[in-house]
Amino acid sequence: MIELQTFIQTYKGQIERKMYHEIDKLQAPPILKEAMNYSLRAGGKRIRPLLVLATMNSFGQDCKKGLAVAAALEMIHTYSLIHDDLPSMDDDDLRRGKPTNHKVFGEAHAILAGDALLTYSFHLISSMPTITPEQKVLLINELSQGAGAEGMVGGQVADIDGEGAELSLQELESIHVRKTGRLLQFSVFAGGIMSGVNPQQLDKLNEYAHHIGLAFQIRDDILDVEGEEDEIGKRVGSDESKDKSTYPALLSMEGARQKLEYHLISAKKSLEELPLQNDLLASIADLIVKRRS
Amino acid sequence: MIELQTFIQTYKGQIERKMYHEIDKLQAPPILKEAMNYSLRAGGKRIRPLLVLATMNSFGQDCKKGLAVAAALEMIHTYSLIHDDLPSMDDDDLRRGKPTNHKVFGEAHAILAGDALLTYSFHLISSMPTITPEQKVLLINELSQGAGAEGMVGGQVADIDGEGAELSLQELESIHVRKTGRLLQFSVFAGGIMSGVNPQQLDKLNEYAHHIGLAFQIRDDILDVEGEEDEIGKRVGSDESKDKSTYPALLSMEGARQKLEYHLISAKKSLEELPLQNDLLASIADLIVKRRS
Repeated sequence: MIELQTFIQTYKGQIERKMYHEIDKLQAPPILKEAMNYSLRAGGKRIRPLLVLATMNSFGQDCKKGLAVAAALEMIHTYSLIHDDLPSMDDDDLRRGKPTNHKVFGEAHAILAGDALLTYSFHLISSMPTITPEQKVLLINELSQGAGAEGMVGGQVADIDGEGAELSLQELESIHVRKTGRLLQFSVFAGGIMSGVNPQQLDKLNEYAHHIGLAFQIRDDILDVEGEEDEIGKRVGSDESKDKSTYPALLSMEGARQKLEYHLISAKKSLEELPLQNDLLASIADLIVKRRS
Repeated sequence: MIELQTFIQTYKGQIERKMYHEIDKLQAPPILKEAMNYSLRAGGKRIRPLLVLATMNSFGQDCKKGLAVAAALEMIHTYSLIHDDLPSMDDDDLRRGKPTNHKVFGEAHAILAGDALLTYSFHLISSMPTITPEQKVLLINELSQGAGAEGMVGGQVADIDGEGAELSLQELESIHVRKTGRLLQFSVFAGGIMSGVNPQQLDKLNEYAHHIGLAFQIRDDILDVEGEEDEIGKRVGSDESKDKSTYPALLSMEGARQKLEYHLISAKKSLEELPLQNDLLASIADLIVKRRS
């Protein structure tokens, strides 16, 4: 049975090579490719693409067949970070310990690099030779909903508009479900679709993804209070300084930790009835809850 | 035989209703929907969606079946205008005689409204009940290439980077082919695909679209020098004030007019061997060349 660390070591590099290769071969202005590449190469846990491949691997599939979807997801995630960091949004100078895209390339190129990454992700999926047209349409349909006004973009709008306001726990969760949850959910959904799972299994996968998505955000909020600046690569306490609502602020640190534990247990419970061939998905839930950055 | 004016009167409203309806039904923050709606409702010639439908109608198809692609194209066009107008790009205060999106909603919401429109356009196409999964994949594949780094976004980067530089005619055309040409080309391509044309016919349609695309840009440049401010809805002479290369500047006004005529004749010539049932596409070429705004 494959260990998560071995799995990550094997596939993280493949995901990254796939992304870099796709950008390299674009017939596009060099400065645009450089700006796209810069943020893709800035590192990161690659949790979304790894989730796609881990889901496929868990169902006994050759997960290399999902590499293009994995790369597309990381491109969409990266575009969202580039736009979120802009001066008119979160106005962040650092991301993963490096200057943000607009600090290096200027705002115009940063916006356009984001636009290009978003657009190209749909090209990647629609170009896949490994899945059927029906599967491509299903994935694109779901992704374009989860990444758009009803999902990630809507979540970012709600997040910006919620700054300085006292949000209820429900409002806070609604923001996170959209802003980060939907793409995580899509990662597992895509892996499930490419593994040919049935609707009941897809529901369970979806439940699992819902819980790890919220766990991910709670852990983020806890790290923002407790983490070491050099480990998380951005200023510690930046949520508080921006007057953002967080789980520790709403529930106390102890309450936030309990909530985190609840989502971890629930995520693992969702996996119980699935015919999985290994523990990769459970291990990813552990990783999300225990990560130091 | 249907006249272009009748055709436009019939379908422009349907395209617009389709777009507004799609935005209205989104489960998204009201301010985001408002920002998306604002720019979609700011008017415009709707030339791209009309081209989709006119191509279908010319081949004897029920062009209502293409409404979702038509709406998607206008959404992508609108997103590109919102982002192009931003302070870090063209820094325009007016668009079609109204304050630009970021002037009304602020930069953050303008960027996100653009992101949401782009993302939703792929959702619209992937949701269509009127075409096959194979057709959807083909359209999405082509659109995501034409709108991205190799097409429209790449053209915008080249345009920004070319400001202040002396561009050759070839460089100028290369920018326009990408920045405006590719989406116009896709409009006709999509109409052709949804009409089931063969590859040779698709080539001819592509040639037609190439010429009307360049004609469109030359006419734009001429209007920027000669047009009336209240007719074109933006400041006359704004290209010159931004030190942008234009056809009149490179070829003289007389040379630009000759080039415009050449592309009009070439566009119509491309249509000659096609089994078209009416003159709609030729009339659209005339409209592009003779428009006053």
